[in-house]
Amino acid sequence: MNKSKEAPIGVFDSGLGGLTVAREIMRNLPMERIVYFGDTARVPYGSKSEQTVQRYSRQIVSFLKTQNVKAIVVACNTATAFALDIVREEAGVPVIGVIEPGARIACDITRNGRVGVIATRATIESRAYNDAIREIRPDINVIGKACPLLCPLVEEGWIHDRITEEIIMRYLDDVLENEIDTLILGCTHYPLLRSTIRKLIGDGISLVNPAYETARDLKRLLGEYDIAAQDPPEAGEPTPYRFFVSDEAQRFADFANSILPIDVKTARLVPIEEY
Amino acid sequence: MNKSKEAPIGVFDSGLGGLTVAREIMRNLPMERIVYFGDTARVPYGSKSEQTVQRYSRQIVSFLKTQNVKAIVVACNTATAFALDIVREEAGVPVIGVIEPGARIACDITRNGRVGVIATRATIESRAYNDAIREIRPDINVIGKACPLLCPLVEEGWIHDRITEEIIMRYLDDVLENEIDTLILGCTHYPLLRSTIRKLIGDGISLVNPAYETARDLKRLLGEYDIAAQDPPEAGEPTPYRFFVSDEAQRFADFANSILPIDVKTARLVPIEEY
Repeated sequence: MNKSKEAPIGVFDSGLGGLTVAREIMRNLPMERIVYFGDTARVPYGSKSEQTVQRYSRQIVSFLKTQNVKAIVVACNTATAFALDIVREEAGVPVIGVIEPGARIACDITRNGRVGVIATRATIESRAYNDAIREIRPDINVIGKACPLLCPLVEEGWIHDRITEEIIMRYLDDVLENEIDTLILGCTHYPLLRSTIRKLIGDGISLVNPAYETARDLKRLLGEYDIAAQDPPEAGEPTPYRFFVSDEAQRFADFANSILPIDVKTARLVPIEEY
Repeated sequence: MNKSKEAPIGVFDSGLGGLTVAREIMRNLPMERIVYFGDTARVPYGSKSEQTVQRYSRQIVSFLKTQNVKAIVVACNTATAFALDIVREEAGVPVIGVIEPGARIACDITRNGRVGVIATRATIESRAYNDAIREIRPDINVIGKACPLLCPLVEEGWIHDRITEEIIMRYLDDVLENEIDTLILGCTHYPLLRSTIRKLIGDGISLVNPAYETARDLKRLLGEYDIAAQDPPEAGEPTPYRFFVSDEAQRFADFANSILPIDVKTARLVPIEEY
């Protein structure tokens, strides 16, 4: 590894959700450049198998390496659950996922030792949050719930919507019965539902947004490896944030514009199957 | 083309929905063998671009050709909208899609010339139903509505559910305002919501299930080409219905068992990207 400190950070997700992680990196590490890849031709990952998600993640790492990234953030819970080890093996640069940062902060803040996790079916069935939490605090009881409809609802734009509220409550019923005091938003789409969920569950339960925790961990990681950017992007420099997708570039750019604090003009298409 | 009349019919879809078409073929053409392919590693198609759906369809045709199929049914509305011509070019055997059969029967049964179509975003934006209907009866007014949440709701199993009813009504509001007398279920998942939709819209509107019309058209097509099966599957013959998927074979088999009139023991995995 012999990268410039001004090299970009590679951030990838199955599609749009990882933009919530990119957003936190932009806010918290404003000196850093980002190359984002969204696998919009094969989205979602949350209903697919370990082998398939691993194959897709491997291809994305190959692509990100061509972009000369100095670190990789797996900004997708399902890809973190299934493929973090493989990404670490193949990347040749420091890698972090979204699960461990979220698990650690949940362990810090729970008082009663009862933590809920909502996520895709694949993430819940992988028990990756259970494992990550057990490693830190084996005494904590983790209550997981797969919520397959929440991503489609976010992508449909029904964020502040009575129907979405009803669906969230149906999913959360079991989880809340377990008297959790902490709830992990275990899919990168879910922070977009944060205020809706907050309204429904009240103030008594802490919400953990792994996107925010991941950005903080990334900062620590860049420090450890002494690869944090020293110079802000120069005026003449092409945009410090570049976006690549495997399909539907314009739709992606529109969505990115709606949630990022910057103006995303375009995303470029990558034939990801060839990597 | 020099196939045995007892060769199988290739049926493909982005995932599970095409099973509603396979089911109608089983019911209406009981002598025929079927090879079904569901692209469960890349499902759904309805949110993806024309180019991507064409590339995926081309790979699936290559696979089906290795199975020596005598005809191909594109049992997915989005793939029919985007890739029917490409499938026809590449197949080397007769091909039918699901849109033209549904459009034709809608033209036959509408009395007031106002036809609604509900489908995926990609199918609606392609205007494939509008074009197919205009070709037969240019006087008909087609009212299309994209319903991105209905597939996820079916796959979540919320078929007879108050929330699903509310979502259907929200989608149908605009369509019903146009005083349609005929509604095409323009996604192969939607026949599974048929009784729910019927309950909501009452008896005054005819529902068109393109799966059923496609099976009837297939029968006609096999007759035209003189390739209809003459002999029922023999007792010693391996199962006349074979299922292939690109991911999650067991989950697929479970779903198939819940909607087909036969016992589906297993589905085989195909590395579809290699075709």
